[in-house]
Amino acid sequence: MTANTMGRFITVEGTEGVGKSTNMAFVKQWLENKRHSVIHTREPGGTPLAEEIRELLLAKRDESVDSHTELLLMFAARCQHVYSKILPALEQGTWVLCDRFTDASYAYQGAGRGLGFNKLKELEAWALRGFKPDLTLMLDLPVELGLERAQKRGPVDRFEEEKIEFFSKVRQGYLDIAASEPERMKVIDARGSVAEVQQQIEQTLEKFYQQVAS
Amino acid sequence: MTANTMGRFITVEGTEGVGKSTNMAFVKQWLENKRHSVIHTREPGGTPLAEEIRELLLAKRDESVDSHTELLLMFAARCQHVYSKILPALEQGTWVLCDRFTDASYAYQGAGRGLGFNKLKELEAWALRGFKPDLTLMLDLPVELGLERAQKRGPVDRFEEEKIEFFSKVRQGYLDIAASEPERMKVIDARGSVAEVQQQIEQTLEKFYQQVAS
Ligand SMILES: Nc1ncnc2c1ncn2[C@@H]1O[C@H](COP(=O)(O)OP(=O)(O)O)[C@@H](O)[C@H]1O
Ligand SMILES: Nc1ncnc2c1ncn2[C@@H]1O[C@H](COP(=O)(O)OP(=O)(O)O)[C@@H](O)[C@H]1O
Ligand SMILES: [Mg+2]
Ligand SMILES: [Mg+2]
Repeated sequence: MTANTMGRFITVEGTEGVGKSTNMAFVKQWLENKRHSVIHTREPGGTPLAEEIRELLLAKRDESVDSHTELLLMFAARCQHVYSKILPALEQGTWVLCDRFTDASYAYQGAGRGLGFNKLKELEAWALRGFKPDLTLMLDLPVELGLERAQKRGPVDRFEEEKIEFFSKVRQGYLDIAASEPERMKVIDARGSVAEVQQQIEQTLEKFYQQVAS
Repeated sequence: MTANTMGRFITVEGTEGVGKSTNMAFVKQWLENKRHSVIHTREPGGTPLAEEIRELLLAKRDESVDSHTELLLMFAARCQHVYSKILPALEQGTWVLCDRFTDASYAYQGAGRGLGFNKLKELEAWALRGFKPDLTLMLDLPVELGLERAQKRGPVDRFEEEKIEFFSKVRQGYLDIAASEPERMKVIDARGSVAEVQQQIEQTLEKFYQQVAS
């Protein structure tokens, strides 16, 4: 790989507590072993302004948040993240690893909140002009199991407060995307131990890597 | 007017220091004299969440703010404002008077920052589905004069820091909207004294009122 080659953009997705944050370091290390420079970031957030938007989104509030408002805030944070951090890194040949990205909007706002995928597609096209991850690892777990894991982690935010029914729709949203874009989004069974999950992740990365390196 | 009649939505626009805030109370009083209940609000802002978004937008920061990010934040605040405050008020028959609205995005981001009106139109359609003011008072002033007035008012924010050239484009943006929607947007010459400006505002309100009352 020369400095002129674009980096690749890899995202990790899934409902609460499936192990996204837990496995970021593993993916990063794996890519670094292939001698890539890698940055690790997350959504919503990733730049100072985008992190401030994240705080607005996650804060519990009395005011009910309109679903369009929520989506526009998500994409505002995402735009800032993409144009001021992700794209410049990729252009320098750095690989970018991101904890959640646009698929989370489809799953949470589109499927979970029932806004539908079409409204999302329009906004995605407007804001990102076709920019997509090269590979997405979707960690899949029955929602009860994920929430159980997440609750062990500490106090819950505005999203984590939602009901099982909501997260079931979110999970189905992710599975629908995976079904329609099987080349990009790979479903990882997250029920096993951390070691078992990482074994699957490694196999998926190997396959992806063979494709992009060839 | 019965409680079943929708209220009307009136906005006040113009570059910095033209007298928008100064004349809000006058317009409100004039409408109250016609026995309407009137609320007075502003953009970006108008609800607790929207005011927090306003703070993000106006804060001076080292990070350069992507123009798409800025626009998405503006429309996030606007969505929240419209759906949780403006529309519910109008539906109750209350008149709503707002210091800046979508026209400001066309003028500042579309014309001033050079994003163009078409990109704006797509986002407006997505977020507001055709919701527009019934009447817009555009206070027009040579930009130097407005900035002189604004500087007397106190410390400047991220927008007020911009150059004359920027505000000239913004002013032209407003004039272009007024030219294409002369029925809705009325240009008020803001060069005179407060009393002179308010005389013109009064005449414009009278004409508008005759139309909507007939
Ligand atoms: N495979 C696993 N088995 C059991 N617990 C796990 C597993 N992966 C992660 N955890 C634990 O579950 C909790 C949630 O994991 P986390 O990585 O924070 O999930 P996410 O970032 O997807 O919300 C953490 O306490 C983590 O230690
Ligand atoms: N017609 C006028 N003539 C002179 N000064 C004015 C006039 N209208 C407003 N001002 C003053 O100009 C400054 C800016 O007015 P303001 O209403 O805050 O403008 P805006 O809200 O449009 O930025 C204030 O100090 C205000 O008192
Ligand atoms: Mg996490
Ligand atoms: Mg003002």
